[in-house]
Amino acid sequence: MVDIATRVWNHKWKIDPIVRSLIDTDFYKLLMCQSVFRNKPDTNVTFSLINRTKSVRLADLVDEGELREQLDHVRSLSLSRGESTWMRGNTFYGKRSMFSPEFMDWFEQLRLPPYHLEKRDGQYELTFEGKWPEVMLWEIPALAILMELRSRAVLTEMGRFELQVLYARAMTKLWEKVEKLRPLEDLRVADFGTRRRHSFLWQDWCVRAMQEGLGTRFTGTSNCLIAKNRDLEAIGTNAHELPMVYAALAGDDAALARAPYDVLSDWHDEHDGNLRIILPDTYGTQGFLDNAPDWLAGWTGIRVDSGDPATGAERAIEWWKSRGEDPMEKLVIFSDGLDADKIVALHNQFRGRTKVSFGWGTMLTNDFKGLTEGDTLAPFSLVCKAVEANGQPTVKLSDNPNKAMGPDAEIERYKRVFGVGAQERVEVVV
Amino acid sequence: MVDIATRVWNHKWKIDPIVRSLIDTDFYKLLMCQSVFRNKPDTNVTFSLINRTKSVRLADLVDEGELREQLDHVRSLSLSRGESTWMRGNTFYGKRSMFSPEFMDWFEQLRLPPYHLEKRDGQYELTFEGKWPEVMLWEIPALAILMELRSRAVLTEMGRFELQVLYARAMTKLWEKVEKLRPLEDLRVADFGTRRRHSFLWQDWCVRAMQEGLGTRFTGTSNCLIAKNRDLEAIGTNAHELPMVYAALAGDDAALARAPYDVLSDWHDEHDGNLRIILPDTYGTQGFLDNAPDWLAGWTGIRVDSGDPATGAERAIEWWKSRGEDPMEKLVIFSDGLDADKIVALHNQFRGRTKVSFGWGTMLTNDFKGLTEGDTLAPFSLVCKAVEANGQPTVKLSDNPNKAMGPDAEIERYKRVFGVGAQERVEVVV
Repeated sequence: MVDIATRVWNHKWKIDPIVRSLIDTDFYKLLMCQSVFRNKPDTNVTFSLINRTKSVRLADLVDEGELREQLDHVRSLSLSRGESTWMRGNTFYGKRSMFSPEFMDWFEQLRLPPYHLEKRDGQYELTFEGKWPEVMLWEIPALAILMELRSRAVLTEMGRFELQVLYARAMTKLWEKVEKLRPLEDLRVADFGTRRRHSFLWQDWCVRAMQEGLGTRFTGTSNCLIAKNRDLEAIGTNAHELPMVYAALAGDDAALARAPYDVLSDWHDEHDGNLRIILPDTYGTQGFLDNAPDWLAGWTGIRVDSGDPATGAERAIEWWKSRGEDPMEKLVIFSDGLDADKIVALHNQFRGRTKVSFGWGTMLTNDFKGLTEGDTLAPFSLVCKAVEANGQPTVKLSDNPNKAMGPDAEIERYKRVFGVGAQERVEVVV
Repeated sequence: MVDIATRVWNHKWKIDPIVRSLIDTDFYKLLMCQSVFRNKPDTNVTFSLINRTKSVRLADLVDEGELREQLDHVRSLSLSRGESTWMRGNTFYGKRSMFSPEFMDWFEQLRLPPYHLEKRDGQYELTFEGKWPEVMLWEIPALAILMELRSRAVLTEMGRFELQVLYARAMTKLWEKVEKLRPLEDLRVADFGTRRRHSFLWQDWCVRAMQEGLGTRFTGTSNCLIAKNRDLEAIGTNAHELPMVYAALAGDDAALARAPYDVLSDWHDEHDGNLRIILPDTYGTQGFLDNAPDWLAGWTGIRVDSGDPATGAERAIEWWKSRGEDPMEKLVIFSDGLDADKIVALHNQFRGRTKVSFGWGTMLTNDFKGLTEGDTLAPFSLVCKAVEANGQPTVKLSDNPNKAMGPDAEIERYKRVFGVGAQERVEVVV
């Protein structure tokens, strides 16, 4: 029997909002936002959405009006009382008051700034300009919205039973991955899949499947809203955005060379323990580690986010040894292009040699590959990056030239300054 | 746990269609349509929507775009295979093949004709012009759409729990009526509430409540779709529309005086038994009965649809007696402004003197009176009537001058021709 009140309620929404909370975002965004708010509040930045999978023609798939409605909805959001309480009162990595009262007062007043949207060549050009601490918070909602609108565009063509079977298959597929991971007794894996998720509800389902299937092996989620709702640890540290903007702001080559360490120096002042995680690949991992000051060797871990992950981990272990540190006391976090088999392999390769954990993204929260005809729900590579800071272009080199970005001349200059030579290309799927 | 496939399915509709089937209409519309298709297929008519409750400003409440979407959706409907099978194969009042193969062939091809919509003085002017058999089928969907869009306009302002409580109260209210009726052992009551229903789902709920609560006392529903879905008898005979158009087509006063009997003569050729029900009030019941030919006294019953219902029933009983008929073999159908108390009173007053049945409309399927602040869901009096036939205005006198319609001069002419004198005014609520 139809519950008429529920049905009326479900149908009276003007839109079905994809992002319904300012904390439906990655925890590291909030940590970085606080750091920027403290250290570089007046920097002007431009963030830009880039679809690296050109074969997915988003502007043909996704209606512009619907996209604007979703983006406008995000601009109407503000931090709720309960969300503020969670941020103010929660323990993160065993530490309380992670967010300062000054930051929280500012965040409670925040509304996200305007966006600029245009269609070009079957893609959307979506950019955000303004003060860094505000603009940076657009990244995750913008990505989540476009990912989910793409899902909806495909789902809208499907029948009632087709949908039921689609989700049954996707659930089965994920559960098989969970079963592969379950035997790894000392596994530590977290959900990093907010930005590329199939949909909010699907990410939430995946998180709960991991909770039930992996127990304490599942360490938490990068998504603050889901962490709050499901009583999980919010996971994350920092990202390429910080060194990229710091580098763009550098006045000369000497300052540029120092920029990646300046970022971590600021971070060092603010955080300790599990939040002291080095992300070394922005301008080439090898050069970064070779030139790193000794205090960085004292940090807790290294995140391997590009290039061959085993090579990256070996490099980290060698570096710690060369600086007189015990790798067994250190943590390697793998977070690039993971899936269950790769997690199993890396886990087996490095356990007993260093601490290992995994930040599992797209293939956790958006693996609908092979589930529709024409593979119309296959994951694709969408990013939203800082492309300019105070009028200067940003540059990323990465350990994989397929992930590099920035103007050619600047890329060459950065390569020279950071001593980056030949690099191995690795195909970017997600 | 959210069933994601179901939720995706529920949210992917562009609109939530109010009328989803050409047989979501009153059974008598289809019977009359077949009669018109056979006897007057080329008559041009204009139907017009009239809100008799001016205080309900429909054009302020209901968005024009949404109204057009709903009306356009109805124009996209055609008879489905299962609907056609039900019409062709079903038994109505014990008789098979109620609808001729010629009519069914035509109906299977039918799409409803265009509509004309304008706003004026806070009301919608909604008219339909064209061949009578096509245009006449707009009446019920047009009314159901406007009634439900008005409901939705009010519901959209309400919260989750407010809605739950609203429907809980409406259900309680209806169930109390059912309990009032249940002790009447030989009661015969049917649902006539399609045109004024709160919503499709609510009508469906009301019908099932009556099924469970009244058992065989509940004889069926005028709504063909619900009759089909719930395995009930489809109920109905004929309406004012037939004599109104026949009268408008009459060439002179003599033909006009004959018109109401011509209608029933055509009907007499097509139907027998329970479908031979006289609706005598179009131009005044007393005159109609006084001048009726003897073969009409042989018909099964009389429907009392305006004026004081007890007076109408007494008049019918007297008339049958005067024509040598036994009222105990005859049926009086009450169908005007009924509610539970009035049904109980009329039932008790006339049982044992004639057969009685009730066609319960608005107060069955739309009694939300007193359930919202400002009584914003109170039923109101919306009709959709034939106003012109082959360029001539139609006229209705009724037994209640508040239900009369037509140009003043024509009303005077009709009153003269049909010998209608002073009439008692009865307030029209629904």
